[in-house]
Amino acid sequence: MTSAPIVIDGILFDAYGTLFDVQSVQSAVATVVPRPEEFVAGWRQRQLAYSWLRTLMDRYVDFAQISTDALNATAAAAGIALDDTDRARLLAAWLRPSPFPEVPVALALLESWPLGILSNGSPSMLATVLDHTNLTGRFAWVVSVDAVRAYKPAPAAYALGVRVTGISRERILFVSSNGWDVAGAAAFGFATCWVNRSGTPLEELGPQPDLIVPSLDRLPGLLAAR
Amino acid sequence: MTSAPIVIDGILFDAYGTLFDVQSVQSAVATVVPRPEEFVAGWRQRQLAYSWLRTLMDRYVDFAQISTDALNATAAAAGIALDDTDRARLLAAWLRPSPFPEVPVALALLESWPLGILSNGSPSMLATVLDHTNLTGRFAWVVSVDAVRAYKPAPAAYALGVRVTGISRERILFVSSNGWDVAGAAAFGFATCWVNRSGTPLEELGPQPDLIVPSLDRLPGLLAAR
Repeated sequence: MTSAPIVIDGILFDAYGTLFDVQSVQSAVATVVPRPEEFVAGWRQRQLAYSWLRTLMDRYVDFAQISTDALNATAAAAGIALDDTDRARLLAAWLRPSPFPEVPVALALLESWPLGILSNGSPSMLATVLDHTNLTGRFAWVVSVDAVRAYKPAPAAYALGVRVTGISRERILFVSSNGWDVAGAAAFGFATCWVNRSGTPLEELGPQPDLIVPSLDRLPGLLAAR
Repeated sequence: MTSAPIVIDGILFDAYGTLFDVQSVQSAVATVVPRPEEFVAGWRQRQLAYSWLRTLMDRYVDFAQISTDALNATAAAAGIALDDTDRARLLAAWLRPSPFPEVPVALALLESWPLGILSNGSPSMLATVLDHTNLTGRFAWVVSVDAVRAYKPAPAAYALGVRVTGISRERILFVSSNGWDVAGAAAFGFATCWVNRSGTPLEELGPQPDLIVPSLDRLPGLLAAR
């Protein structure tokens, strides 16, 4: 953690879990399977693991396919037979998350900076989510790692943020609620902010975040005025 | 799954979970924390995640350090304070696994082929485990990915197996109980065998194993005589 205000020229946000609450997925799962919390945790864990493994293996498929594969494997492991209707309903829930409550105010308070999204989500997933949440106009950039066929925390995924924004890496603040994502962004050279809504300990992955906030509306006060 | 016997010139085994049962870790954890099964599952999951994430981030540390970091983070997440004695006892358990019961017989039945280990474990971890289990003499090669500072399933880790053995990749059979490891090895171009002791479904990661066996002693009968 640094004590002086951070000087930056733009902000890139992770999407799922950082701007958008995926409670919608939990709700959809609860209509289909018993023990929905355990199922969603397993699905989410496989989604991430598959994205990392396929990047390491150089066998990229887009995040909609990752989500489908992870859902099928999680259902198989749990001994749950999903029909096509169930499967479609569960996958569609990723397109209808709500912003966390403080997000509209926080984005308004950050309007001095150009804002963007840098997400593992596929371009069509991101477009649908932003349209649904009426937040499209808030962002100068909506960037999917699909353009480089590598998921975060591969350096190529973060480098895309530099390429698209034209801002040097150390003047970009990368904001995520995922500890591993913040570590990857810091290793790449972004300034970083970890949104730790649940008060969990840091992961032990090396680089530490420059800023830690309990919710996004606490971020504007920590930045040097622009 | 292929129906004709597989023709190969050498066999490389994954170590932890494939040749060696890590029940020793479970037993050690049970002396230190409540709900040891949940703790070990979390520790193991973080161990793997950290190995993949650090490879993607190009921030390699060896597997003894990965294990320590994953242990500390898992304890912190569970709100458990470990003293140095606890920590040392838990980490030492990874050095004292037992071979699965069928391993000595299976290795004897496979003696027509040169055998090796290709493991994420650090060189000193592997040397200690093999010495403890009296299996050192069974293996022509004991290879740690530490030499390339990249964990499986990065292609560089499997390529080390080709470099050390001098055998072309498609004539090496890679044997692992980890679905993701088998998928990575198949993506690299090894012939593969998945040891599925617990009857779990395949992961949805693309390449499928050439062979699936419920235990290692079923492998020799599936290989073309040599």
